[in-house]
Amino acid sequence: LDYQHVQVPFEITLWIMLASLAKIGFHLYNKLPSVVPESCLLIFVGLIMGGIIYGLNDKSPPVMDSDIFFLYLLPPIVLDAGYFMPSRPFFENIGTILLYAVVGTIWNVFGIGFSLYGICQVKSFHLQDVSLLHNLLFGSLIAAVDPVAVLAVFEEIHVNEKLHILVFGESLLNDAVTVVLYKLFRSFCEMPAIKTVDVFAGIGKFFVVGIGGVLVGLTFGMIAAFTTRFTKNIRVIEPLFVFLYSYLSYLAAEMFHLSGIVAIIACAMGMKRYVEANISLKSHTTVKYFMKMWSSVSDTLIFIFLGVSTIGENHEWNWPYICFTVIFCLIWRALGVLVLTFFVNRFHVNTVTSKDQFIIAYGGLRGAICFSLVFLLPDFDRKKLFIAATTVVILFTVFVQGMTIRPLVDLLDVTKKRESAPTVGEQIHIRFLDHLLAGIEDISGHWGQYYWKDKLEYFNSKYLQKILLREYDQPKSSIVLLYEKLERKHAIELAEAGQLGHAPSHPSLLNSHRTVVTDRKSEDILNPDVLENIQEILARNLYRIRRTVPAYSRHTLPGETEPAEQAEEILILRHRSL
Amino acid sequence: LDYQHVQVPFEITLWIMLASLAKIGFHLYNKLPSVVPESCLLIFVGLIMGGIIYGLNDKSPPVMDSDIFFLYLLPPIVLDAGYFMPSRPFFENIGTILLYAVVGTIWNVFGIGFSLYGICQVKSFHLQDVSLLHNLLFGSLIAAVDPVAVLAVFEEIHVNEKLHILVFGESLLNDAVTVVLYKLFRSFCEMPAIKTVDVFAGIGKFFVVGIGGVLVGLTFGMIAAFTTRFTKNIRVIEPLFVFLYSYLSYLAAEMFHLSGIVAIIACAMGMKRYVEANISLKSHTTVKYFMKMWSSVSDTLIFIFLGVSTIGENHEWNWPYICFTVIFCLIWRALGVLVLTFFVNRFHVNTVTSKDQFIIAYGGLRGAICFSLVFLLPDFDRKKLFIAATTVVILFTVFVQGMTIRPLVDLLDVTKKRESAPTVGEQIHIRFLDHLLAGIEDISGHWGQYYWKDKLEYFNSKYLQKILLREYDQPKSSIVLLYEKLERKHAIELAEAGQLGHAPSHPSLLNSHRTVVTDRKSEDILNPDVLENIQEILARNLYRIRRTVPAYSRHTLPGETEPAEQAEEILILRHRSL
Repeated sequence: LDYQHVQVPFEITLWIMLASLAKIGFHLYNKLPSVVPESCLLIFVGLIMGGIIYGLNDKSPPVMDSDIFFLYLLPPIVLDAGYFMPSRPFFENIGTILLYAVVGTIWNVFGIGFSLYGICQVKSFHLQDVSLLHNLLFGSLIAAVDPVAVLAVFEEIHVNEKLHILVFGESLLNDAVTVVLYKLFRSFCEMPAIKTVDVFAGIGKFFVVGIGGVLVGLTFGMIAAFTTRFTKNIRVIEPLFVFLYSYLSYLAAEMFHLSGIVAIIACAMGMKRYVEANISLKSHTTVKYFMKMWSSVSDTLIFIFLGVSTIGENHEWNWPYICFTVIFCLIWRALGVLVLTFFVNRFHVNTVTSKDQFIIAYGGLRGAICFSLVFLLPDFDRKKLFIAATTVVILFTVFVQGMTIRPLVDLLDVTKKRESAPTVGEQIHIRFLDHLLAGIEDISGHWGQYYWKDKLEYFNSKYLQKILLREYDQPKSSIVLLYEKLERKHAIELAEAGQLGHAPSHPSLLNSHRTVVTDRKSEDILNPDVLENIQEILARNLYRIRRTVPAYSRHTLPGETEPAEQAEEILILRHRSL
Repeated sequence: LDYQHVQVPFEITLWIMLASLAKIGFHLYNKLPSVVPESCLLIFVGLIMGGIIYGLNDKSPPVMDSDIFFLYLLPPIVLDAGYFMPSRPFFENIGTILLYAVVGTIWNVFGIGFSLYGICQVKSFHLQDVSLLHNLLFGSLIAAVDPVAVLAVFEEIHVNEKLHILVFGESLLNDAVTVVLYKLFRSFCEMPAIKTVDVFAGIGKFFVVGIGGVLVGLTFGMIAAFTTRFTKNIRVIEPLFVFLYSYLSYLAAEMFHLSGIVAIIACAMGMKRYVEANISLKSHTTVKYFMKMWSSVSDTLIFIFLGVSTIGENHEWNWPYICFTVIFCLIWRALGVLVLTFFVNRFHVNTVTSKDQFIIAYGGLRGAICFSLVFLLPDFDRKKLFIAATTVVILFTVFVQGMTIRPLVDLLDVTKKRESAPTVGEQIHIRFLDHLLAGIEDISGHWGQYYWKDKLEYFNSKYLQKILLREYDQPKSSIVLLYEKLERKHAIELAEAGQLGHAPSHPSLLNSHRTVVTDRKSEDILNPDVLENIQEILARNLYRIRRTVPAYSRHTLPGETEPAEQAEEILILRHRSL
């Protein structure tokens, strides 16, 4: 027996296997996941596993390594989140999201840090040795809402799209703030004296870390899109580039102390559009499938490891500190959301309702990022206290808040996500309004979101598409192609059905060809770009009207119908209407 | 800059990226891969990279780590080979393959070992310190034909299926022999005296290593198939199990010193049939795509690393020894093939022609397995000589033999692979002959391959399918389902075309339903099992007759046509024949 030799890959494979089997187990009984969130069940499995390991070895089970978490487990989840991010609601609410992510997180960090420092001054709690800086450091790691936990819970409760993107977007973008504050306070802890310069340098870092992350991500995204231009002869390695470049963007950002999460999201959102157009349909299925699979497994592993790591002797149970941490986390988040939303609502017509505010505040779940950060702390006296407090906060938010949020959403009657896709009319109107508003903004000299969107679209079609897309010249008016195909098919069918004779030169066939030609002519009269867009919308909606698929789910791909099936359906609809 | 932190994943990602980009580069110009095999080009890239590293650092570039090769690079290639292995020609020629793999390899090992020992006795060569055991050890690692190199070259020359499976099957199955002989001689080298018992124990090990590998592989394959029974509610992680279980089988076999290659092939071939039936179509596309992608990247990395590792100061250039190694490798392989084929041809009607024999002998390429094994040797005086000889043999076989084999195949006019799939008539006749021969073997009491195949098929449908398949009860007579669907579609089309009235209760519709019913009745009269098989063959062939897709290629998936397209095609054919 030579276990040493194969130990590393063998144990990794076994852990992944355990995670996958646990997932299968939960989904065997359909009732269980509808009551208890999967994340809770997985933590529970982890607790049991940890207990077994602890019982057998009589020493603390291995703790989730922070490097493994940040380098291998987190990227797939963030990549999946970025790749399947609904871009319209995200960019529409980008201001609000940034406000929550930046100002809200800073508010929470200082709020929690200072009030915990207040608690430490109470003599009977025996906490007087915890300095203000240590409290702020703890605040910086415990304040950040965790994207993994938020995704796991929110994808199951189906709240409306805006509410979802507000919480989820915040949890992703606050990474830049967390990275900066955490590293700042940690370096302050090790410095003998803090100068004012250091504080200002810290503030400057926010922008470097955040904007740098975006730039790194976009650069890699563009290179990825450019690379997939040349993969026509070797389709099987196409999916690889999507993963390689986004992972490289994450690693490069981490290497330069920028925000890796922000980088990978920028990379995924940037390349998606071009990569999808360049790679084959099968490659794209593989990309989507593997992304879902990978993030699903990572997510499972993280929660199991969270459970395993909870067991053991790493904790110092100072209950006042721990209880007040939980309370302050709740209070400061609630206050922060209230205050910030007050300002947001003053500048927006489409306000955030008080029910939504409650869910935003209540949905501030903490997770594995806090946990990994607390283990990365340099060793000092009270590290075990911080670990204990972090563990309790995570378990409290995931179990108590995670399990009660669904009944609360039902009870408060929070606006749910509409299950049907927008109709053609709506989409066309939205598009026309976008153009209209862009025009108004241009005339009034106001550089708002519509103006920038329009400029970006122009830049994209004028330069980017030419560089990044392989088949740019070919007109992509899919509805015309579809129509031609249908007409041809229909003509063949009619001819062969014996109704109109057997020769292919029959008038009906010629007729159908003429229809296509007229169709093409009408296209030439209108501006082809606009027409193409409308045609795309039509092509998508003609069939989609009757589909009701939720927009995002971790475990399933957005339902795709075979194009042929779609074509058949359209054919039948058309026949009926005639 | 914090490079230390991300170094490991960053460098791995960069190497994979380099490999993928090199692959894209070669395929940009279509002429290049048709003249020079890709493996040669990749080694060349590796040589240049190695030269650059050597030039910059002034020390030998890093050598491919044997652990990385055996644990991470080899399994994907072998898994791909096993999963896409054409099982019929493999099992039809299993006797010949085993003879080549076991007896042939032993013949080569001892032939090369003893004759090199003879060379060592020539005083002017200064090799008298190389003992017989060391020569045999060297023979054991240089004798084995390499599956990676064979695949890379043979997939491009399209020889007939039997010839391909003989060389390829041998290269896969000789792993068991190589493992045993290599470990045996290595332990003999370290023993003070060799007893007769040890030699017999070595012979016994052959069977343990080979059969043990098969058993481990089949066990994991069956568990994998069983697991996929329960993944209906969570489709996205289905592909994972295929990879996890086959990798586990490889690691488990390696752990117990069995043949990992044999295990992973047994696992892949065993599970394929059941897994395919259990998982969704998209999961299956992902599995196939990722397998191709992974093996393609591994293969590229191996050849690049081979090139990089060649550069440096690890070599001792004793030219007589090196030249004689190359010569002996060629001579002993040629002799072995001649002698073994003589015996094979005496017992087979379908003989191996002399042209085929030449290609089998000439196609005995060496590759990365030899290279990794020679680096795994314990340190002794002449290790660098062995490394140099191995490098030269690999480069000679890959460059000289690999580049000339295609012109030779054309020159000798070796029977090529038939590009079209067998016709329906052929397939039905083959099937009937199988049954007939199984019957004859049963009556005559001869337990030949047909007898065993029949028994296995019986065992499979009686027990295995019931345990391993999710939807076993449902009759899978695909042609009936397809026919029903087509009839329904046709009826709708006819009705809506206006030819036969608009009501769905029209006679033609009823008629079509009646046809289906009659079809079902005729099914009940015949033995449903046999009928189902014929129907499957028919369903596949009705359309496939006109397709010409090569059966195996590393870079492309077997061409799949959309079922709807197929249905349409069948519809048109049917209409024409009416």
